[in-house]
Amino acid sequence: MTEAFSILRAHLQELITLTDGEFEYLCSHFQPKKYKKHTIILHPGDRVHNEYFVVKGLLKTFLTDEDGKEHIWQFAMENWWVSDYQALHHQTPATFAIQCLEEVTLLQLSYSDRNKLCSEMHKFEHFSRMKVTSGFLNMQNRVMALLKNDAQSRYQQLLQQYPTLIQRVPKALIASYIGVSRETLSRLHS
Amino acid sequence: MTEAFSILRAHLQELITLTDGEFEYLCSHFQPKKYKKHTIILHPGDRVHNEYFVVKGLLKTFLTDEDGKEHIWQFAMENWWVSDYQALHHQTPATFAIQCLEEVTLLQLSYSDRNKLCSEMHKFEHFSRMKVTSGFLNMQNRVMALLKNDAQSRYQQLLQQYPTLIQRVPKALIASYIGVSRETLSRLHS
Repeated sequence: MTEAFSILRAHLQELITLTDGEFEYLCSHFQPKKYKKHTIILHPGDRVHNEYFVVKGLLKTFLTDEDGKEHIWQFAMENWWVSDYQALHHQTPATFAIQCLEEVTLLQLSYSDRNKLCSEMHKFEHFSRMKVTSGFLNMQNRVMALLKNDAQSRYQQLLQQYPTLIQRVPKALIASYIGVSRETLSRLHS
Repeated sequence: MTEAFSILRAHLQELITLTDGEFEYLCSHFQPKKYKKHTIILHPGDRVHNEYFVVKGLLKTFLTDEDGKEHIWQFAMENWWVSDYQALHHQTPATFAIQCLEEVTLLQLSYSDRNKLCSEMHKFEHFSRMKVTSGFLNMQNRVMALLKNDAQSRYQQLLQQYPTLIQRVPKALIASYIGVSRETLSRLHS
């Protein structure tokens, strides 16, 4: 698992500088996890205690509506963080499910440890603020493209955000993320 | 303007505890601003250097698409923060316009001062992380309601997020925020 922690260190050091001691202290709060393809690591209704840094592999966060239709909230791949953040933050039951689309290696961090580390280490609070700001700005793009009903720019954003995704998941999942039918997706893709 | 700063202090103290000295130091970075109804405080294409804490009044952040249709990204009222955050963060020209829908009192904070204060005061970085987390979670709700094409829940979210809005703005603006026609809005409202 040394490799997993090296990947985490490179990820953190994109935004902050850490001494070896600081990094080791951070690491002591992360639990390595490996899951097989298709494993559901979070079910709707579960209590959510953790978030995950994706070292390797691909996951989807989704919900299924009353008509049985699946809506994809997020894909998560290498260097992404994933959880049901609404449930994690408000300590309410999960509304999303999270499923592995490939074999995955994760580093698990509990909500209480995220907050403890933020409170103990100003640098880590800074890192966390910057990461959630990026998430907020990505969401802003997604809302505007949805409001403008502009499937083409949603498709372009997806290619930008997840460059390798198109080779890694079935077209039906891409269509569900963008919020269009598979027929519309074929037109965007061509 | 003492009242404006008291409102800011109450807002900050919902999340952090400040000594008088710390609060005075923070305040020295905020500029009070007053604008008349209809004033446009940011135009698309402008360089964005500031964000604003809303002390009193109501604003809209919006963009106009190629067909001249207005899309509302956000309303901002008392105790909200407002800017074109994409442009502010990436230091690119504004894509949004921000207009006062009422007479407003604002406290202006520059992007460089936000970052300076976050770096100098761990407490303020914590406050900022919590605020952007709330913004991210609100966006998550909005994306899911847009993807599910569920105008009724978008309307309910709007009522929850901005309880007094419905009495303060024309119906056409509400419809634009939710992304429905005025006819559809009348059905949701009834």
